[in-house]
Amino acid sequence: MSTSRFDSPEAAIAYMKRVAVGRSGFATWLDVEPITVWEGQSELLLQLRPEMTQHHGFAHGAIVGLMADNACAWAGASVAGDVVTGGYTIDFLRPAKGERLRAKGSVIKAGKRQVVVRADVWAESDGAAPVHVAAAQATIVPTGIVP
Amino acid sequence: MSTSRFDSPEAAIAYMKRVAVGRSGFATWLDVEPITVWEGQSELLLQLRPEMTQHHGFAHGAIVGLMADNACAWAGASVAGDVVTGGYTIDFLRPAKGERLRAKGSVIKAGKRQVVVRADVWAESDGAAPVHVAAAQATIVPTGIVP
Amino acid sequence: MSTSRFDSPEAAIAYMKRVAVGRSGFATWLDVEPITVWEGQSELLLQLRPEMTQHHGFAHGAIVGLMADNACAWAGASVAGDVVTGGYTIDFLRPAKGERLRAKGSVIKAGKRQVVVRADVWAESDGAAPVHVAAAQATIVPTGIVP
Amino acid sequence: MSTSRFDSPEAAIAYMKRVAVGRSGFATWLDVEPITVWEGQSELLLQLRPEMTQHHGFAHGAIVGLMADNACAWAGASVAGDVVTGGYTIDFLRPAKGERLRAKGSVIKAGKRQVVVRADVWAESDGAAPVHVAAAQATIVPTGIVP
Repeated sequence: MSTSRFDSPEAAIAYMKRVAVGRSGFATWLDVEPITVWEGQSELLLQLRPEMTQHHGFAHGAIVGLMADNACAWAGASVAGDVVTGGYTIDFLRPAKGERLRAKGSVIKAGKRQVVVRADVWAESDGAAPVHVAAAQATIVPTGIVP
Repeated sequence: MSTSRFDSPEAAIAYMKRVAVGRSGFATWLDVEPITVWEGQSELLLQLRPEMTQHHGFAHGAIVGLMADNACAWAGASVAGDVVTGGYTIDFLRPAKGERLRAKGSVIKAGKRQVVVRADVWAESDGAAPVHVAAAQATIVPTGIVP
Repeated sequence: MSTSRFDSPEAAIAYMKRVAVGRSGFATWLDVEPITVWEGQSELLLQLRPEMTQHHGFAHGAIVGLMADNACAWAGASVAGDVVTGGYTIDFLRPAKGERLRAKGSVIKAGKRQVVVRADVWAESDGAAPVHVAAAQATIVPTGIVP
Repeated sequence: MSTSRFDSPEAAIAYMKRVAVGRSGFATWLDVEPITVWEGQSELLLQLRPEMTQHHGFAHGAIVGLMADNACAWAGASVAGDVVTGGYTIDFLRPAKGERLRAKGSVIKAGKRQVVVRADVWAESDGAAPVHVAAAQATIVPTGIVP
């Protein structure tokens, strides 16, 4: 996806940390680390903590889901400024067992009223191949607030 | 939906609290209160705390999403025993502004391999009408572990 | 959902037949019969023909899907005028075996930029109970063209 | 996705034409041409005819939807034998204006009980760049009937 709403990859991540994470109680609790947020692509990393698991000991589906949702929202924000999630679909592929979750989002259509994004989530552990745990597709709605 | 996996509504909620909440770090952090889990229907309540908000001050989409997902999973569990979420679709209808979230799930097809459930989430505040904030549809997969 | 874009239920159905069906090659081929299109609710009926089946002899999933999509679009159109489908999710519940398909749509949020609708499809045969074959949720986008 | 259910790409397409198309009234009416059905990938082509349009003159959403659904089902069948569609989500990206539709499906998880597939649909016309008109994600269920 062509143009960006930000001057540089560093500016995009700085905005993300300041506004979406810094002003969000939940994002602060989560402590998601933005790796890339640029030109329709996003990559986010989350260190899993015991308070993020479900009753089988894996990452809770809601944690996997929010990584997918966040990756979509941030890929969308990179081309559209401030956004909210309109809706999304997620399929869980495998148990999210690992030390951290990595999510990547990719814009497939950047419209004025709606941005469509796909995202994938992987569970990772040191010394093991990443495991693809979820696939999502979201519609992201620009709020019109441009950073 | 006809038969239940549990002997009584009280037994269903006791199982939920003991297994899915008691053994889940994330559920303990959330502290969702089960109101009803019986014969394909579920109702859950969550008191919103500052660490559950996004950057506009509303309940974070991931919190709304997990209430929908949980309501689907628990409606499914009431007819199928232990379950995992296969996937779900959620549409966010309005900002989730309020003191608490209430979610209701309703089984629409209880198959052996898959249970299809719809859920809705409302934001509530004392002295105000509930606001319908999200609508979801999920496929819930029985694990075969029967309580 | 409150107000309608049409003066009467009869006017809504007349518009549907004239514009959406009369000018659509596919809708003419299908010959879907509108039963109700009014105040956020729709009900449509389709007589199944041999050219609408898949290889197991049931109604083809695409035919079931379009009944769900059409029911959502028409429920949306009843409150928003001319619309297009933004996207939808459908879960197939049972084989669509029968003489005809009936679909009902119900608006759950009528926004200016987006209308969210749920729909269900049943397969029917004379002398038998209707079988619930699909559940869907759609986002319908008003085009701004008002009849 | 690793192994295939068929001995060769030609055998996969021959099976598709004989069973799924040859025994399906709707597929015969549509006349979808399979280009590739092999090792988790599918590519299908459909010549658009006047009876496939909606009231704005574009390919009807149901026709776009079935191309996405078919591409998912055939990508799934290439690794799992006979299948049915469990459900799918589709987002419509642009009006499907053109002489033909091309759909490509790609398996992202081939499980025993469920195959998750993504698909995209393009509208094409001679002398013009293909237009990406829809993005979908589906769950495909193996029936256990192996060709």
